[in-house]
Formats: sequence, C-alpha cells, structure tokens
Amino acid sequence: MIILVSNDDGFFAKGLSTLVKEIEDLGEIFVVAPDRERSAVSHALTLNSPLRVKEIKERVFAVDGTPTDCVNLAVNGLLPKKPDLVVSGINFGPNLGEDITYSGTVSAAMEGSLLGIPSIAFSLATLDAPAFFTPAAIIAKKIIRFLLEKKITSKSVYNVNFPNKKTCKSYKGIKFTKQGKRKYGEAIVEKIDPRGKKYYWIGGKDLGFEDIPDSDLVAIENGLVSITPISMDLTDYNNLKEIENWKMNLLK
Amino acid sequence: MIILVSNDDGFFAKGLSTLVKEIEDLGEIFVVAPDRERSAVSHALTLNSPLRVKEIKERVFAVDGTPTDCVNLAVNGLLPKKPDLVVSGINFGPNLGEDITYSGTVSAAMEGSLLGIPSIAFSLATLDAPAFFTPAAIIAKKIIRFLLEKKITSKSVYNVNFPNKKTCKSYKGIKFTKQGKRKYGEAIVEKIDPRGKKYYWIGGKDLGFEDIPDSDLVAIENGLVSITPISMDLTDYNNLKEIENWKMNLLK
Repeated sequence: MIILVSNDDGFFAKGLSTLVKEIEDLGEIFVVAPDRERSAVSHALTLNSPLRVKEIKERVFAVDGTPTDCVNLAVNGLLPKKPDLVVSGINFGPNLGEDITYSGTVSAAMEGSLLGIPSIAFSLATLDAPAFFTPAAIIAKKIIRFLLEKKITSKSVYNVNFPNKKTCKSYKGIKFTKQGKRKYGEAIVEKIDPRGKKYYWIGGKDLGFEDIPDSDLVAIENGLVSITPISMDLTDYNNLKEIENWKMNLLK
Repeated sequence: MIILVSNDDGFFAKGLSTLVKEIEDLGEIFVVAPDRERSAVSHALTLNSPLRVKEIKERVFAVDGTPTDCVNLAVNGLLPKKPDLVVSGINFGPNLGEDITYSGTVSAAMEGSLLGIPSIAFSLATLDAPAFFTPAAIIAKKIIRFLLEKKITSKSVYNVNFPNKKTCKSYKGIKFTKQGKRKYGEAIVEKIDPRGKKYYWIGGKDLGFEDIPDSDLVAIENGLVSITPISMDLTDYNNLKEIENWKMNLLK
C-alpha cells in the first residue's frame, strides 16, 4: 500500500514527522509537502507559475507551492503509482467549523478526494505549545486502519481533530461529528508603518462558537477526538428543493 | 442599499466594470478587489503579512491580497457599514463542478456568506475571447433583483454561470442546478529550465464532464444560465448517518 502524506505547515513540521514515524509500517510512505508554512491558503492551486520540487531524502519531497499543488503533483507525476490513501497533517492548530474552508491541511485531503483517493486530514486543536503530537499520531494510526477496514471511498474527506492531551488515555472518546459554527467578530487591525503609510492586518478575535450538539467544536471542547465526513459536493440540496419551484421570467 | 463588488481577476477587469456599470442604480456600490489577477487562490486568507489598500477612485479599492482578504477587509474595516449584498465577478472563465473549490470568485462570495451577508458569484463560462460580458451583466442585474425580492439569506451562496452568448436572447433559459462533476486526467507538465533544472507545471486536460441531469455543467452546455445554491456547511450528512453507527474501540 502507498500512502501519500502532506500538510500545510511544511515538510519539516513536527506534526508531520511524528505521524510518518507512527504509520511507517502501514505501507510505503511518500511525503510531498510545502517547502515552508502555507497555512490558510485553502484549496489554492498554482496555475500561472512553475513549481520546483526538491528531493529532501528518499521518498520525501518539498514543493514551493500550496498543499493542493503538492497532492496534485504527487499523484499526477512524482509518485511511482497512484496512492491508496492521502493523509494530511498532523496540523498544528484546529480545523473546526468554518476553519475547514480556509484550511490548507483539509484542502490537501480534498485534492486527494477529487483525484479519486480516500483521504483523511488530521489536526491538533491547539494554538499553544506544548503541542502533544505523539498521542494524536498513535490514535491517528488506529483511525487510518479502522477507516481502511471500512473500505472508505474518496467521496467523503474525513476531517479528524484531536484535543491537545498528554496521553491517549486523556482523550474522552472518539465521535463522528458535523461541522460546527464559530462566532465571528470584527477583526481588522489598522496600523501605520515606519514610512507613515497605513496597513491592515486580518485578525481574528476568538468569540467562541455556537453550542451545536454533535458538532466538531463541541466534541473538542468536551475532550473527544472528532471525525467529520466532508462532502466535495457543495450543493445546498435543502435550499435547491425550495428554490427550484421559483418562477423566473427574467429573459424577457 | 450598499453592495460590495469583488472578484479574482483584479479591480481593473472588464467583467467587473461591466457588472458595476449595469447595477450602479441598485444602490451604493463599493468595489474592493485584488490589485492583480488572483485566480485559483480559493478561499485563501492572508494571516502572516500585512495588507495594503489603494484607493483607486471614490468607492473603488485595490488590495494586495486574495479575494477573501478583500471581502474580509471591506466588511470589517473599509466600508462605512456592513453591506447588504456581496457580489463577485463577473469572472472571465467558468466556475462549474469542482471548479468552485479552487475558485477565488466563488470564495469571495463564500466569505460574504460567512460574514452573514447574502452573496452571489457570477462567472462567464468561457476561456476564449471574445467574452460577452454585457448580456451577462444585464441578466445578472435581474437575478440580483429577483434574489433580493426573495429575501435570500447568507446561508447559501448563489453561484451563477452564464454561457458565452452575444445577446440576452441567445440564453436558452435560467435554471437552478446542482454542482456537476468534471472528468480529470493526468495533468502535470515536466520541463527543463534554461539552467538545466527540472520544473513542473500543473496543466489541466479538459476531458469533459459527467452527464448528470440538472447539473451546472450540463445546463451551460445546453445554453442555459445556471444558478447553484452552495452550502457553507460541508458535512456529508448522508455519510454521517451511516458511519455514526460504526463501533470504534480505538482508545483501548
């Protein structure tokens, strides 16, 4: 079995190396990851410039592109054959609620899914050090095995988040969840640079999240490992059912 | 009424100016758009560097960031008050099927939706010149009016694609659709640069699309204007219903 590992923190990130070390007996592991941090690049794809690939060591490649570029390049060119699984992470930071629409980590897994490969994204839900990647990696391996045994397809991406705990025993359980909702606030910082010119910085006041039962955010809050199946079909079917009956005579 | 217009082709793009000119009597129009082309940047948000804003003329701002940055900055800082509507486009190029996960145009509208504002993305489904933006802008205005009368909320993003036709009369109709599926092929070009070093370019062989009735891709093929409601909740509920019954004893 060939497993492709990517991330958005860069090929050198501790979350990635901890995961790779843990899962190396599951198959032949290839790492194709960005050559620097690429957080919040979302599902960006580099179309207007060439990409460089550096072979760091055997089966480890650094790309001067986005996580989506990495997976696309790996699957369509770098790897000897199509991988059986794409794994992204372990990200340093949560990918919960609306985070996933911005996330490079989740987008790497989405790219795997779009290319027809079962794909899983792993994130450690903390922004503070120390980050405990080892227990997360141990459980990540068990989740990978479990999902492979269930013969998951590429239709859903599995978005896994771990609470930041010192040991596996400290996780309160594992739960399948839905995407939650963060509360947003105004979050722009306006400043003046040393040349007297204005600049802006996108902030992000943490205003908490909505108390939606069975959501990823609530699961993490309660110390559970959260697994959310994500669809690559973004159609809002509930809405579509309603609006397809609307009468429109706009072309006359 | 305040309307925010953005795009991913840049503030100077013809698709944007054609749209703005057409809709300027609907309310007070603000343009906040990238200072250069930013296609396929998806929902990327600039967190690790400052953003510069240039006031091009009254109510027109160019930002050295992504479409998502533009909408975030506009709503949280630049505009006198929260806009009543976010409009993105008219993009030069289709945003159909899986395109929308990569699209800067659609992501600008997604950001509007995440910030609680009804949002619509417009794209002209052609990659070739001449691009007929005028009939698209005329119908876009009618669609905006129609959707505002229906009191649409920010829950769905409306993704509108126009076939490339010379006149409004040439559109065969307007249809509410679901997201279709493109066929993907291997699409990496490997080359050698003048310094003798390898580089890669992500290609994109057009292998057509799946014949899914009521999909956006099929609607455009048939000369119809396509409107797809997109959900910002990516949870795969069909899958979740099945997998939440799976027994997992992975923590022991």
